[in-house]
Amino acid sequence: MSGARRRLILDLDTGIDDALALAYALGSPEVELVGVICSYGNVTMRTAVRNTCALLDLLGRPEVPVLAGADRALAATEAFAPPAGVVRIHGENGLGDQRVGGLCRCAPGDGLALLRAEAQRAAEKNEELLYVPTGPLTNLALALGAVPGLSSALGRVTFMGGALAVPGNVSPCAEANIANDPVAADAVLRGGLRTRMVGLDVTHQAVLTREDTAAWRELGTPAGRLFADMTDYYIAIYEKNNPHLGGCALHDPLAVAVALDPSLVGCLSANLRVDLEGATRGRTVCDPERLRDAEKSCEVALTVDAPRFLDEFRARVTRALA
Amino acid sequence: MSGARRRLILDLDTGIDDALALAYALGSPEVELVGVICSYGNVTMRTAVRNTCALLDLLGRPEVPVLAGADRALAATEAFAPPAGVVRIHGENGLGDQRVGGLCRCAPGDGLALLRAEAQRAAEKNEELLYVPTGPLTNLALALGAVPGLSSALGRVTFMGGALAVPGNVSPCAEANIANDPVAADAVLRGGLRTRMVGLDVTHQAVLTREDTAAWRELGTPAGRLFADMTDYYIAIYEKNNPHLGGCALHDPLAVAVALDPSLVGCLSANLRVDLEGATRGRTVCDPERLRDAEKSCEVALTVDAPRFLDEFRARVTRALA
Repeated sequence: MSGARRRLILDLDTGIDDALALAYALGSPEVELVGVICSYGNVTMRTAVRNTCALLDLLGRPEVPVLAGADRALAATEAFAPPAGVVRIHGENGLGDQRVGGLCRCAPGDGLALLRAEAQRAAEKNEELLYVPTGPLTNLALALGAVPGLSSALGRVTFMGGALAVPGNVSPCAEANIANDPVAADAVLRGGLRTRMVGLDVTHQAVLTREDTAAWRELGTPAGRLFADMTDYYIAIYEKNNPHLGGCALHDPLAVAVALDPSLVGCLSANLRVDLEGATRGRTVCDPERLRDAEKSCEVALTVDAPRFLDEFRARVTRALA
Repeated sequence: MSGARRRLILDLDTGIDDALALAYALGSPEVELVGVICSYGNVTMRTAVRNTCALLDLLGRPEVPVLAGADRALAATEAFAPPAGVVRIHGENGLGDQRVGGLCRCAPGDGLALLRAEAQRAAEKNEELLYVPTGPLTNLALALGAVPGLSSALGRVTFMGGALAVPGNVSPCAEANIANDPVAADAVLRGGLRTRMVGLDVTHQAVLTREDTAAWRELGTPAGRLFADMTDYYIAIYEKNNPHLGGCALHDPLAVAVALDPSLVGCLSANLRVDLEGATRGRTVCDPERLRDAEKSCEVALTVDAPRFLDEFRARVTRALA
């Protein structure tokens, strides 16, 4: 592999922590963000597209392509609309109800076209493509079936989602991204792809406080102000729903950080499945039938060096907002 | 600590794998089994007493005290009787319906008296008492409240029970020992005691086959024959209920092995709680409120060196049966 910057595709359902993940990626010198594919969850897919475009404009990177992805779960008959509880967390517009400007300049075509081009390029150059989904795994599940050679072009796919040893956040067992499309997540986790799960086990250990958002505000830039106000909105919800955390969990940015530097987390090698029915629907759990297989497809993050991650987070996001 | 043999108390609900755990302990030269306290789960507490006495007679160690423990969960109003599913697994008599002889010579007094004496002795000699429960944690929860100094006299308590990253065996989330007294388990896990959980995460990776039981039968001893026949009964149930395992899980013996040699397993340091209500009742899970505490009270076994454990198991159990 060359010393050039690694090519990164983000797969975002652009609410507040997705916006922080986007800033983290743009502030990371070792990667080139070659496109953002949108999905649904924190917001509708269409809103994710609009938010992503607006944020890229604000962060001075309007040339990054933003592409439409799935607007619903594999088994759903209607486009996804966020339930009231999610709207409370991310705001009506998905960005803490902060006014974001700009033209929606969604690139023509969809995420699959980008993945086809990038998979081909990765094969030709013998490089690994970085792909980081921070919403449901619907786009990835569809792409694995539709894009020849994608599986081998992708490096280990680090995704935000799931809860292995901790309670879920939408039910006692289920984390929201997985719960939004358990069928897609199960297909990805049992399909042989190498994955790295950054779930609630570690994201609830990576907490941002109002001290950090105050520092962004003091940057004096429009991006600094918007990110500070938006994240304060998010922190306020956490203060209400998860007061023991003392701030907001940095779910999506941690996934991007771990994709770039896996040494931030300690992992269990495991073969996972997703429960598809009953009270545990959406749970990520070790597959009993593959418990003793020597080959494990997933690295499940269970511990995190939170201080080191937070240092990286502050440095990189500040770089993007300055 | 002296080079003398460490003193060990087992807390058994003596069904088939408890019998294997007992043989493992008796075949382990580095420990002295100073007593067995009985509980309920695989069988009633009274049957556990009778089975333990019979097995100690058979294994040539009739002098080991066998003591009555709790016969029901902390919140139960009636003595525990095993449900039909459990009777199928361990047989009507708890030992695979193999005929076991002998007098029930349960020592006068109960488990608490033994624990009082041993806790005092450990304090005087500045030693750590090994205590290994392989049934529900009722006896331990009661003892921690009733025996002064017990908590500091005990080394880290290795127990068989729970399921952190794998499905349960009595419900999608719950393992049988914890499900039999979730209140006791929660009190132990959140009470500050240092524990080591040997649950289904690892015991389903430690599998015994009919080749091993055939070798015991060839020892030509009454104990070898009984253990072979009893364990074949257990394997037959596993072949029906868990065909992917290819044998029976060595739940309880693995807990004893890990208590004597913790290097057999790889652990996650965690603060656990037990779900007490709803569909996840009996689940062992990381306590979100203590997720970021620097101090972790439990070492949860998630990986196991199964070949090394099986070598130890074969050597020690054969020594006890010969």
